[in-house]
Amino acid sequence: MAEEPKNGDAVGSGVGGREAEEEQVVNPWEVTAKDGGKIDYDKLIEKFGCQRLEEPLVRRVERLTGRPAHVFLRRGVFFAHRDFNEILDVYERGEKFYLYTGRGPSSEALHFGHLVPFMFTKYLQDAFKVPLVIQLTDDEKCMWKNLTVEESKRLARENAKDIIACGFDITRTFIFSDFNYVGGAFYENMVKVAKCVTFNKVVGIFGFTNEDHIGKISFPPVQAVPSFPSSFPHLFSGKDNLRCLIPCAIDQDPYFRMTRDVAPRIGYQKPALIESSFFPALQGETGKMSASDPNSAIYVTDSSKDIKNKVNRYAFSGGQDSIENHRKYGANLEVDIPVKYLGFFLEDDAELDHIRKEYGAGRMLTGEVKKRLIEVLSELVERHQRARASVTDEMVDAFMAVRPLPHMFS
Amino acid sequence: MAEEPKNGDAVGSGVGGREAEEEQVVNPWEVTAKDGGKIDYDKLIEKFGCQRLEEPLVRRVERLTGRPAHVFLRRGVFFAHRDFNEILDVYERGEKFYLYTGRGPSSEALHFGHLVPFMFTKYLQDAFKVPLVIQLTDDEKCMWKNLTVEESKRLARENAKDIIACGFDITRTFIFSDFNYVGGAFYENMVKVAKCVTFNKVVGIFGFTNEDHIGKISFPPVQAVPSFPSSFPHLFSGKDNLRCLIPCAIDQDPYFRMTRDVAPRIGYQKPALIESSFFPALQGETGKMSASDPNSAIYVTDSSKDIKNKVNRYAFSGGQDSIENHRKYGANLEVDIPVKYLGFFLEDDAELDHIRKEYGAGRMLTGEVKKRLIEVLSELVERHQRARASVTDEMVDAFMAVRPLPHMFS
Repeated sequence: MAEEPKNGDAVGSGVGGREAEEEQVVNPWEVTAKDGGKIDYDKLIEKFGCQRLEEPLVRRVERLTGRPAHVFLRRGVFFAHRDFNEILDVYERGEKFYLYTGRGPSSEALHFGHLVPFMFTKYLQDAFKVPLVIQLTDDEKCMWKNLTVEESKRLARENAKDIIACGFDITRTFIFSDFNYVGGAFYENMVKVAKCVTFNKVVGIFGFTNEDHIGKISFPPVQAVPSFPSSFPHLFSGKDNLRCLIPCAIDQDPYFRMTRDVAPRIGYQKPALIESSFFPALQGETGKMSASDPNSAIYVTDSSKDIKNKVNRYAFSGGQDSIENHRKYGANLEVDIPVKYLGFFLEDDAELDHIRKEYGAGRMLTGEVKKRLIEVLSELVERHQRARASVTDEMVDAFMAVRPLPHMFS
Repeated sequence: MAEEPKNGDAVGSGVGGREAEEEQVVNPWEVTAKDGGKIDYDKLIEKFGCQRLEEPLVRRVERLTGRPAHVFLRRGVFFAHRDFNEILDVYERGEKFYLYTGRGPSSEALHFGHLVPFMFTKYLQDAFKVPLVIQLTDDEKCMWKNLTVEESKRLARENAKDIIACGFDITRTFIFSDFNYVGGAFYENMVKVAKCVTFNKVVGIFGFTNEDHIGKISFPPVQAVPSFPSSFPHLFSGKDNLRCLIPCAIDQDPYFRMTRDVAPRIGYQKPALIESSFFPALQGETGKMSASDPNSAIYVTDSSKDIKNKVNRYAFSGGQDSIENHRKYGANLEVDIPVKYLGFFLEDDAELDHIRKEYGAGRMLTGEVKKRLIEVLSELVERHQRARASVTDEMVDAFMAVRPLPHMFS
């Protein structure tokens, strides 16, 4: 999969979904809001044809799993879906499904935006007790970022350590990189999918051009086929009708629109999706989270001092320009990054409500909110760093071994 | 690889190389002569930019291998090449190279045209004592012929039996099908090649269109990478500079023009080629050898009775319409199929010369020439059928096992 998109960052040649110059562009390689504003997620839902993830579905998840919904679910970070209700129907009948997510390993250091789908996927795995396949698209990054094969493979293993550090259950989780795993039944499915998709179709979906190399044009089936259980005979042999649920950021939707279009034509089930909005840059939702600007994001390798410095200096504030005005008008929560970040990572609903109320009314100052965010992020990063330090090369090998998972459904 | 092309048979969407409606078209999926005439091989050499295989090179092969050149070489069936002289330089220095050929398994029954590259490759393997990789492009046929994956794989194994029956040395030969072997180092090379080739480029080389499916567009790297020793780590690990020689029909040249263009950009040696003309249909060089017309070719599954019937009834004769005229004007050897077929398969140069002289002068009748051809073909087919009957599934497994070949150069 593509790495977590950078708001406003026009990378790659993708122009898919661009209807007119002033429209927003959301595809796996480019996320650009209209006129430098915010992404209009309602428009995205309408345009992509997915469904909004409404409150009753969140309640149903809580009822079926017997645990509170994840913060990302109850606060609308995962805000859209395709057939997620069908996955819950399956589960309610006592049947199982499997999860599929992934990452394009283009950089060594992950930021919080990269972790969002993995944190949520871990919750889903724990709550539903289901197997999970994680694809590391080292081939994609080799082709799009012009990395060597060796460097792409190295980054895939490094990123696998950060993913494992999120706490996935090794008895239910298979991590694979394309360079290691493409072949056999997986390649057969790639060919089956590729036969059903014309060049014109990928131009329409992904915005490829005639000047793009054929590696790019060949890639969509690679990301499509983990949606089909038959791509993993060591896991799902004889379970060709097992449903698949894909948690991902909504910029990945084009891949799976294509996949869902093809699935019935080759006798397979359509994958279901649960899709998140984008994690905002420190500079604000209209800013860029850019790999070339380390101050645009908090990285999981940052020290507490880095975090304090970045939040205090760069986190876009909705507070007023003087204490007097702030007390009078209160903070603009719609644009305030510290409050948005707390919405992702502060688990205590009551405390978050309190902060929103007090800060919005001007009784709490930006400095106090930032201080709380620094605490929350520092704790998260420290926990991640401890977990990652304990991930050995042997553990990576174990997660990436092509092996049956006899207890994956229990 | 594509199956032996059918003269004049417009299959597939390929229009590559078509410069004007009246020009001849030669690409892996279409071989059509200008105005329904014969293929102009001189023009093809000029257009493709390959070299004519001249007499001195044939003599050099004889000198270096210490044996007479194969009939296909001394009679110009293999008439063009790219850097074949460099391969001979390498060999003369006491170094080795490897051979690569292949087949697209689109049908159960092979005809003689299909066997030509394999008969010649066996000669090269025996003469130079070098390893050989044989690619069965079951993925290609699955995509172009709309076969199922299972049927393509089955045909690949069936065709492997006919190929093995040609007498390849198991200690020097690795046969693989794409569905079984794509992955690992082979897939890494596919990605490296794909990165270097734009869609515009494959349109120019192969004539793909925007309506073609992306499976077709993805395929050229699959046929390209067996040209690189690093695609076979179990055979050539540490021998990244080993040269590769590809014996094939000239319709496959577009794949290897592309490969040779890409090779230096990814740090690899260009493969050398030795290229054959097309095997003519029974109905004549301007006719079609069509899978839908079993009477257009002699199949290796034909009985002696079939052969006798086909040759007598369908082989286009250059003889005159009456014995009187024949005695007077002689046969037109330029269009006579029995003489052409004898040129492929009658090993005795003196006898062939005799037949050409007597028949051309009208002293020998068509019936006599056909009788000799029936003998030659029947003997060949019987030998092939006996050899094929002795090929077991275990032998196919053994040839297709991914294994080192410790004695391949000795």
